[in-house]
Amino acid sequence: MFYAIDILGTIAFAISGVLVALSKRMDVFGILIIATVTAVGGGTLRDVLIGETPVSWMLNLNYIYVILASTVLTIIFKNKIDYLRKSLFLFDTIGIGLYTVVGVEKGISAGLDPIICIALGTMSACFGGVIRDILCNEIPVIFRKEIYATACILGGLTYFLVRKLPIDNNVVFIIAGLVVIIIRLLAVRFKVSLPTLYK
Amino acid sequence: MFYAIDILGTIAFAISGVLVALSKRMDVFGILIIATVTAVGGGTLRDVLIGETPVSWMLNLNYIYVILASTVLTIIFKNKIDYLRKSLFLFDTIGIGLYTVVGVEKGISAGLDPIICIALGTMSACFGGVIRDILCNEIPVIFRKEIYATACILGGLTYFLVRKLPIDNNVVFIIAGLVVIIIRLLAVRFKVSLPTLYK
Amino acid sequence: MFYAIDILGTIAFAISGVLVALSKRMDVFGILIIATVTAVGGGTLRDVLIGETPVSWMLNLNYIYVILASTVLTIIFKNKIDYLRKSLFLFDTIGIGLYTVVGVEKGISAGLDPIICIALGTMSACFGGVIRDILCNEIPVIFRKEIYATACILGGLTYFLVRKLPIDNNVVFIIAGLVVIIIRLLAVRFKVSLPTLYK
Repeated sequence: MFYAIDILGTIAFAISGVLVALSKRMDVFGILIIATVTAVGGGTLRDVLIGETPVSWMLNLNYIYVILASTVLTIIFKNKIDYLRKSLFLFDTIGIGLYTVVGVEKGISAGLDPIICIALGTMSACFGGVIRDILCNEIPVIFRKEIYATACILGGLTYFLVRKLPIDNNVVFIIAGLVVIIIRLLAVRFKVSLPTLYK
Repeated sequence: MFYAIDILGTIAFAISGVLVALSKRMDVFGILIIATVTAVGGGTLRDVLIGETPVSWMLNLNYIYVILASTVLTIIFKNKIDYLRKSLFLFDTIGIGLYTVVGVEKGISAGLDPIICIALGTMSACFGGVIRDILCNEIPVIFRKEIYATACILGGLTYFLVRKLPIDNNVVFIIAGLVVIIIRLLAVRFKVSLPTLYK
Repeated sequence: MFYAIDILGTIAFAISGVLVALSKRMDVFGILIIATVTAVGGGTLRDVLIGETPVSWMLNLNYIYVILASTVLTIIFKNKIDYLRKSLFLFDTIGIGLYTVVGVEKGISAGLDPIICIALGTMSACFGGVIRDILCNEIPVIFRKEIYATACILGGLTYFLVRKLPIDNNVVFIIAGLVVIIIRLLAVRFKVSLPTLYK
């Protein structure tokens, strides 16, 4: 089941990459690269920084196939994608929750401190979008007006708090992922965002 | 002979970096960095992602010497470089063909899937230019109007198709490299480019 | 003592990141990321390129604590930070001197050529700022009008020259660091900068 959600997250990230690339008038190759980077960029940076190479998408081709298929379908149905915006947002949010927990667990198996693990989880979930925005010559959107990363950080914290309880590891995984998802949904629903400190 | 072409490719990439950096009014240090990044950036990213570190240009100083010499000469003769534009384009194209095949072969020795190897070949050939454009605050040119990457992908595919024939590995190398070079030359000659899908 | 200076350098780099992020109207999370990247980005790139992973700030949490504290304090006292500009400049300059020599020594222990070691030292000192500028969608400032990197390169050269003398390694460290610091101070004092070659 986790795996199916992982794939949904990859699809949502890839589609968001395609939509940004289309708005920048990129060609087919550019669109494909932006889709790939958005979907796997965060995990790639995480793997490189902890030295787990070759990075994971090179060892499991399913990511590539899913990204290719999502890209082609999004290009074909790009005029209809607006109807899907709500489902997309949901996939994206679920993907972030999952990516966060996967990143935290990778940090734990590398023997790193909880603070670093939370940073790795946040990086896995958010940096695909950061690299996408850099390649598209924009200031990354999550630095400006999203509660995105904050949800990931709080989810990571939850993971380490809940983990001390005498419960199964899969349950810890689910609770932490749900915290990310719920905070993100509530933040968007009630239009909460971080202060910008600029007057 | 391959080695000589490799050096020609490095020279061409370095010069293209210098020309872009000059147009951005960078100082001598900035120009040198952009030249280096353009020449070795793609291979560096490839090496980091597959975990082959220290990255290759740190182990063979000839790249650095060639880049230094190319940068100094380009700065000195920058007003005359226009006469060289055709030869430069040829070196660049030969360099891409060679870098693609080198990248593919690195992927094979790391035991990766053909699809990933083709991605690594394309990355080796194209991402130096992508990093150059990001550092110069431009949307990477190959995402917008070049047949560049497509030529690399087709060359990589050729490598794996031809490899199944009972021929020498060096011949496979040459054929795949030539495919990249010829597609690129034809595309520029006949002004072919990928569709942008934007209306 | 070196360690205390290292911390001062990290503080100075983090504050410079916060100030740039504030000027870009980023939210609190964005500011924290830019502060972190400015402080540890150069060393991270160095570690990844030579394959020393997990990268160093993941193994020593003091960097993270110092960056967090500097970020919070800078945000609180941002209207008063102007009074500190001179001390900040001094910390920053000392930090660069130290980071350069640390980078050079990391290259030596990885068994790399002196030229590559000097490049690694310069990278450690300068690329945090480069990544900061890329994330903020600016052409990196050191490519345009700073004597910054040149001071690092000359300090690195000094390291290898002085090292041949029969003196203690700590003294070599101090002399090379001082060369970076003095060149930078003199350059700023007398408004020296590299030529841009643009007419």
